[in-house]
Amino acid sequence: METLTNLLSHKTIRNYKSDPIPDEALDKILEAGFRASTTGNMQVYSVIVSKDAERRKELCKLHFGQKMVEQAPVLLTFCADFNRFNKWCRQREAEPGYDNFLSFFTAAIDALLVAQNAAVAAEDFGLGICYLGTTTYQADKLVEFFNLPRGVVPITTLVVGYPDEDPEQADRLPASGLVHQETYHDYTAGAIDEIYREKESLPLTAKLIEENQLDNLAQIFAYKRYTKKDNLHFSRVFLDVLKDQGFME
Amino acid sequence: METLTNLLSHKTIRNYKSDPIPDEALDKILEAGFRASTTGNMQVYSVIVSKDAERRKELCKLHFGQKMVEQAPVLLTFCADFNRFNKWCRQREAEPGYDNFLSFFTAAIDALLVAQNAAVAAEDFGLGICYLGTTTYQADKLVEFFNLPRGVVPITTLVVGYPDEDPEQADRLPASGLVHQETYHDYTAGAIDEIYREKESLPLTAKLIEENQLDNLAQIFAYKRYTKKDNLHFSRVFLDVLKDQGFME
Repeated sequence: METLTNLLSHKTIRNYKSDPIPDEALDKILEAGFRASTTGNMQVYSVIVSKDAERRKELCKLHFGQKMVEQAPVLLTFCADFNRFNKWCRQREAEPGYDNFLSFFTAAIDALLVAQNAAVAAEDFGLGICYLGTTTYQADKLVEFFNLPRGVVPITTLVVGYPDEDPEQADRLPASGLVHQETYHDYTAGAIDEIYREKESLPLTAKLIEENQLDNLAQIFAYKRYTKKDNLHFSRVFLDVLKDQGFME
Repeated sequence: METLTNLLSHKTIRNYKSDPIPDEALDKILEAGFRASTTGNMQVYSVIVSKDAERRKELCKLHFGQKMVEQAPVLLTFCADFNRFNKWCRQREAEPGYDNFLSFFTAAIDALLVAQNAAVAAEDFGLGICYLGTTTYQADKLVEFFNLPRGVVPITTLVVGYPDEDPEQADRLPASGLVHQETYHDYTAGAIDEIYREKESLPLTAKLIEENQLDNLAQIFAYKRYTKKDNLHFSRVFLDVLKDQGFME
């Protein structure tokens, strides 16, 4: 059960050594990614590998200046990609019908399963990873940066490299608060208190409340980290990208 | 590198024994799922476990009658879930701003990384898995079936059970056709022919063309398996679900 142990040991890494990743390791990581399940075996995704130091500096700016983007030797940008499949169809006198939201979402699922397999494989090589949620926020700029044609949308990015830190494992909500048997059992006020109790009592939480001068952790999420204003702005950006890239016909 | 070997050995299983999965194994599989990276450690997802034989029969119908849905002992339906987080925010006098497309997509990413970790963990227990793409097609009916409140949307389903078959591994496109170095290199007609050559020359492909009485594999995808008409229909269904579940404000 080495695999289970590895999955249970996952830690997100935010500080990296600059040591390069051997090509053979990176190839295997991607190969493991491409073994993930894919809708109808269509494989409607692409991965863009960023190693060039100058390009990673540019990407660091696009990803809101998160230092690790520049520090780590490899960035993997996973894209939903119907461009290749559409081209294939057209070359075979088959008119593709994949310019719609369902097709986009199918391709996004494909891309995310590949990303997670690659993340797990990378950790098996002793590498650390971090996902960049900024990929969807900056999707318009990444389309330009990577020269993505119609049919291609960036979904997520993995930072990959050798860890230069050994952090504590992050907290998680109790599984009982995340699992529903047979049907969804909506949460009572008491259940919500119970599920969030441990998280709210962490020293890290106390520190964040102090730093942010707010009443509690929920307010830090709603008013500092993931605000309504930002969410609405980035919703528009991302929906415009879906439209521009031909997925909302 | 047992983990890498496991990832590279993945096969989708479509025939299952009815043997139940021990609770301890299922708990560990879900725990491994919940260790996956999650945006801002918000864990905006839920998993619904279906074991009840009658309920699985109903689910089998909803998932287009795919026999394995009824055959396998466990179905895991992974949902994007901001309901729990929103309730927590409101109990803490924090007005949540997560009723938008960006928040939906963030939660969907979370749910899919959990699903893939669970899939990998299940295989480590000697179990087989299959993803059900029908989850998004039938999202409206699944919302009803599972009684999902506003803020919750079904994203994907894993069939999990002991394999009753040992199929060949599915073909994959050559990695060189899926990976781009530094920037997206769009495909020439020659490159498309090259990337799809092996797939097109498989005995399975010849068999499918014969059965479907079409000219080639691309036409089978475009005109039989994933048609424009179906994609447009299910796009409307899924977008309506996003709206009804409060993610398009």
